[in-house]
Amino acid sequence: MSTVIINNINEIKNIVKEWKNNNYVIALVPTMGALHEGHASLIKRAKETCDKVIVSVFVNPIQFGHNEDFDKYPRTLDNDKKLCDELGADIIFAPTPKEMYGENNKLNNTDLTFVCPPYSLVDCLCGKSRPGHFDGVATVVLKLFNITNADFAFFGQKDAQQLFIIKKMVKDLNLNINIIPCPIVREPDGLALSSRNSYLSREERAWALSISKAIKQIDTLFNQGINDTNILFDSALSVLNKNLEIEYIEFRDFETFEKVKSAKENTLAAIAVKSGKTRLIDNTIL
Amino acid sequence: MSTVIINNINEIKNIVKEWKNNNYVIALVPTMGALHEGHASLIKRAKETCDKVIVSVFVNPIQFGHNEDFDKYPRTLDNDKKLCDELGADIIFAPTPKEMYGENNKLNNTDLTFVCPPYSLVDCLCGKSRPGHFDGVATVVLKLFNITNADFAFFGQKDAQQLFIIKKMVKDLNLNINIIPCPIVREPDGLALSSRNSYLSREERAWALSISKAIKQIDTLFNQGINDTNILFDSALSVLNKNLEIEYIEFRDFETFEKVKSAKENTLAAIAVKSGKTRLIDNTIL
Repeated sequence: MSTVIINNINEIKNIVKEWKNNNYVIALVPTMGALHEGHASLIKRAKETCDKVIVSVFVNPIQFGHNEDFDKYPRTLDNDKKLCDELGADIIFAPTPKEMYGENNKLNNTDLTFVCPPYSLVDCLCGKSRPGHFDGVATVVLKLFNITNADFAFFGQKDAQQLFIIKKMVKDLNLNINIIPCPIVREPDGLALSSRNSYLSREERAWALSISKAIKQIDTLFNQGINDTNILFDSALSVLNKNLEIEYIEFRDFETFEKVKSAKENTLAAIAVKSGKTRLIDNTIL
Repeated sequence: MSTVIINNINEIKNIVKEWKNNNYVIALVPTMGALHEGHASLIKRAKETCDKVIVSVFVNPIQFGHNEDFDKYPRTLDNDKKLCDELGADIIFAPTPKEMYGENNKLNNTDLTFVCPPYSLVDCLCGKSRPGHFDGVATVVLKLFNITNADFAFFGQKDAQQLFIIKKMVKDLNLNINIIPCPIVREPDGLALSSRNSYLSREERAWALSISKAIKQIDTLFNQGINDTNILFDSALSVLNKNLEIEYIEFRDFETFEKVKSAKENTLAAIAVKSGKTRLIDNTIL
């Protein structure tokens, strides 16, 4: 059976109600579309674990800054549907911004109830250069959880800060959903998959490859017993291509999200850069 | 069968899961305890409509300002239980602040994911003199919705702004719960029931009685065809006892929450005052 595309909130809520009456276990894979093998790995994992799989495809306006790439973000619903067909997803939920937020559906939506993660988690790493971003993420994710009534939701570890914030939201708001983190999927040469890789010129892609090399370098040194994050930082820095504009290289405890001076197991090592105009992130959990 | 008191989130979640498996329709009556006939009317209504009734009794620290009455707010769990027994409520959910928020359970909790209603709804009426109050209310109410998985929640119209904000949250976040507003319950002489009435001296109570008289006056004039809110305002003002410290007398559209110059059906007329040190509110929906 092929994947059904649904745009309407009430329609999907009715289907989900039916599923719940049949005691089906429901999976949600929240995406912004432009699906790649990273998303495919989440959908496969969802399919293995749950009876029904919903893939949401929604480029969420309230998580994009005014100077960001909301308008040019790739929209490839036909291809997304093909992938979902192949993988056996039951539903693509692809609402319009208006369906999700009404008329006032921009970043500066002042007529909306927002979910606001703790300041300490949003005013750092990617949140520092993207004010309001994680409020928009948490808000749309909670909406999607409620719309789909999912039992499990699958998130890629590539957006590690997002993953942490979502898990915190689930705990703080007592949500009845299980968050399943899934590993980063990479190109054969190591580049972490991202829908934004499509923005890269050949040259910019070559520069970007050094991000995964720097991440790998951190992993290697840590496994050799080097814990000092100053040393790990310098070493990563030396590997990053000089044409990249570095936004951060940071080391945080993935239990508390506090900065660490000495890396240990479950330390997040995260990098954000710009290659040309394209913002890219990568990380590893040691 | 008498009402069972439960303090633990996981314990009540397990009971609710069982109920859901049996397709019971679940009601939540969120309260801060010190139950009076106003609460009783909500519980009765819940009992009529639903299979199972949960009354939450929780004085929510994150909705009280530093100079407010969190510490002295009446706690009367034994009496609350008696009333719930009589009315046939199934469960009182009475968690500790620590159970709800962990160690950092005060108003200025910076380690928590908050629900933030739109600024336009919180920066007015009661929210104006109680900054952060409605963020704390929305957050705890969403937590209680998730913990109890209720199908219906019953709120008194006395807290009209709260009711409006909760309905807005349900809409904005696509919650799967129905909000049932219930009318204000009054003493025989007209005073709106409130747990805070217990703070009043005999004299302060006599002054406070004029609040319900002012509300009644607005109702009467409106029914006589007077729509001009300036006239309604002045008339209410003239009825209010001169010893009361008036915080606001306001007229708002109960669809949009915008101020109205000309009252019409579904206009909220709301009054807040202090009688002595006790803050009291009352309202009518025209």
